[in-house]
Amino acid sequence: MAKKKEIVVQKFGGTSVANAEKIKRAAQRAINEFDQDRQVVMVASARGKQTDELIRDALEVNPNPPKREMDQLLSTGEQQTVSLVAMAIEAAGHKAISFTGSQIRMVTDSVHTKARIKSIDTKRLKKVLDEGNIVIVAGFQGIDENEDITTLGRGGSDSAVALAAALKADTCDIYTDVDGIYTADPRIFKDAVRLEQISYDEVLEMASLGAGVMHGRSIEFGKKYNVVIHVRSSMSDKKGTLITHEVPQMEGILVSGATIEKNLAKVALIGVDNKPGNAAKVFAHLTGAKVSVNDIIQTEVSKQKANISFTVSKNDFADAKKAVEEIKTKVGCEGVFYREDIAEVSIIGVGMRTHYGVANMMFSTLAKEKINIDSITTSEIRISCIVDKDQGDKALVAVCKTFELDKPVDKRSYVK
Amino acid sequence: MAKKKEIVVQKFGGTSVANAEKIKRAAQRAINEFDQDRQVVMVASARGKQTDELIRDALEVNPNPPKREMDQLLSTGEQQTVSLVAMAIEAAGHKAISFTGSQIRMVTDSVHTKARIKSIDTKRLKKVLDEGNIVIVAGFQGIDENEDITTLGRGGSDSAVALAAALKADTCDIYTDVDGIYTADPRIFKDAVRLEQISYDEVLEMASLGAGVMHGRSIEFGKKYNVVIHVRSSMSDKKGTLITHEVPQMEGILVSGATIEKNLAKVALIGVDNKPGNAAKVFAHLTGAKVSVNDIIQTEVSKQKANISFTVSKNDFADAKKAVEEIKTKVGCEGVFYREDIAEVSIIGVGMRTHYGVANMMFSTLAKEKINIDSITTSEIRISCIVDKDQGDKALVAVCKTFELDKPVDKRSYVK
Repeated sequence: MAKKKEIVVQKFGGTSVANAEKIKRAAQRAINEFDQDRQVVMVASARGKQTDELIRDALEVNPNPPKREMDQLLSTGEQQTVSLVAMAIEAAGHKAISFTGSQIRMVTDSVHTKARIKSIDTKRLKKVLDEGNIVIVAGFQGIDENEDITTLGRGGSDSAVALAAALKADTCDIYTDVDGIYTADPRIFKDAVRLEQISYDEVLEMASLGAGVMHGRSIEFGKKYNVVIHVRSSMSDKKGTLITHEVPQMEGILVSGATIEKNLAKVALIGVDNKPGNAAKVFAHLTGAKVSVNDIIQTEVSKQKANISFTVSKNDFADAKKAVEEIKTKVGCEGVFYREDIAEVSIIGVGMRTHYGVANMMFSTLAKEKINIDSITTSEIRISCIVDKDQGDKALVAVCKTFELDKPVDKRSYVK
Repeated sequence: MAKKKEIVVQKFGGTSVANAEKIKRAAQRAINEFDQDRQVVMVASARGKQTDELIRDALEVNPNPPKREMDQLLSTGEQQTVSLVAMAIEAAGHKAISFTGSQIRMVTDSVHTKARIKSIDTKRLKKVLDEGNIVIVAGFQGIDENEDITTLGRGGSDSAVALAAALKADTCDIYTDVDGIYTADPRIFKDAVRLEQISYDEVLEMASLGAGVMHGRSIEFGKKYNVVIHVRSSMSDKKGTLITHEVPQMEGILVSGATIEKNLAKVALIGVDNKPGNAAKVFAHLTGAKVSVNDIIQTEVSKQKANISFTVSKNDFADAKKAVEEIKTKVGCEGVFYREDIAEVSIIGVGMRTHYGVANMMFSTLAKEKINIDSITTSEIRISCIVDKDQGDKALVAVCKTFELDKPVDKRSYVK
């Protein structure tokens, strides 16, 4: 029996296939992998601004378009891309075949515009791969049990990682306009360096902090199904960043990256009656108002009273305020305090689990810079400090220097 | 049991759904029928010039795009239209649902870009109609047994007539930019009148003469499955022309319409050896060269020699010439004569079957106008004369006057 070939799944976003030239370039990337004796499945998005244009077309005929029809409409964008990529590959002399979500039986639930994948039938995919085709699959779409077209929520697990899992691919290459994941945002910390490798958990923490690398559910999916995700540039052949399971050497790295989140507001309920069920009452009310709450801090200030504070995205701030004003008297709250002039600076690293003193290094760095900490929250692999917004960038840079995020991990003084 | 509702299938071409305003107008037409307690299935094409734009996109990445991928690409145009029409209908307060060819199991053969319909599964269609939905179906597309998307040849039987047949619809309304079928082209015979009714056979003869009313196979399909086809204007509510089976009163009408075809060339092989198989040799060679031959005339000129002449569309003229030059010596041909300066004027009417003297009326009309007839061909319900091109329009007008094609049929002096 022939040796089983490596399988690579490649994902190209809309900007990477925006015009004929870029489509040809994406086609060439697929061919390059194919020529190294790999089986190649490419997942592509709609070209450039096309999704936006289709949404505009829809709003012209219906200000509140039904979601089923929206999916029927928007799925055409990716369908166009994949057929064009297949044509470009054929033009270069290779066999190619494009598929819609429906054609590969990417079965989802029926939650239109944010469907979740239930199953993928890889039979046909494997057959055409074995026949020597490069396969191009329309991203972000599937079909429900009724044969209705669905689209996957932008924050949902994406088709590429799901396909890589279903095909047991050796790698899922995500082509983007950056060449990998950096220790920090280079626009703020200009000496930030690209990470060669990072764990799913670390990227998940970064994603939840808004560091926009990849959507959380894709990472979760990759973690669950052991898909090695390779974030790399669509403009160069350089290796990017591998997202993998935690490997032993990661433990020696105290901090893999640092992030800053500025699109935040803080709500503090002062002097809430300190009795069971009051916090639940507040957050149930916020959930009812569809407000998504981030970090929560509750502290007892006396036997009778407690303070409850939390952060929300600025987009939810108006709704959060309204909800809090409605509920505050019902929990005996003495006053509410809102802040919009904040930033949250975080450090992330699986090494924190086994190393003490990381929090202390961060706090003393901020103290040395005379940056006041409004509040602190932590997870097992993350420490976040809320600071004044106008001190946010300075705080990030200081923290990056302390943890030597301008150096590759093997060059840092604290790494064993 | 409730009385079975009437079913109407409506077909809208690309120009009738080219923008938001026209989409809303098409939506309103569907609603109007629905409000008269009918079940409505609309079949729509891609918006305006969209198919052309997609073809251009394809050619940018591949000058010779594979047909399967072309179908995958072009089918998106109609899918966009139908979802937008469904949205527009919902915006007007009615239930609507759009389907692709795949979703209604419009199964075709696998001849990409000119597939033919094999079967339609009306189960889901009927279900959603019974649930009170207006249904919008993407035209010109289907799916083969491999789940590959196909598109129907533009000259193929179209989805609307096929759906009307499958649903046993009461009528198939074809919305176009003209308000029906006329006795002659009003650009040439300005007094031409709209026909209220015409038979499938007559329209078939007109279509084969290039009168561009509807594609031949749609009419054949309608005839075979008893679909009443209503050609009408997308800009007005007026009744158009019904295409139906022949009804007894049509027999009294000598001529229903007259046409002129100018996109023709004539090829005459002079002095071909008059022996069995020579004509077959000529036409087999033309078929091999993919030349589509129209009317053929063969006449013996002596015991030894015969003349063979035929007409072809100008698009095929170069190929026809090449093929004839290749074959001519093999059939002992003494000379070939080509003409491009011709026009074919025809009269069509099922009444000819039972009335003598129609041909004579036509020939004497042309004689009176001093128009020379190059050649004559006939079918059971058609007489065609080839004349000099610069006399074509004059010939058409004269013939129209003779057969009173400026009057509704019941006002003509010769109609019993």
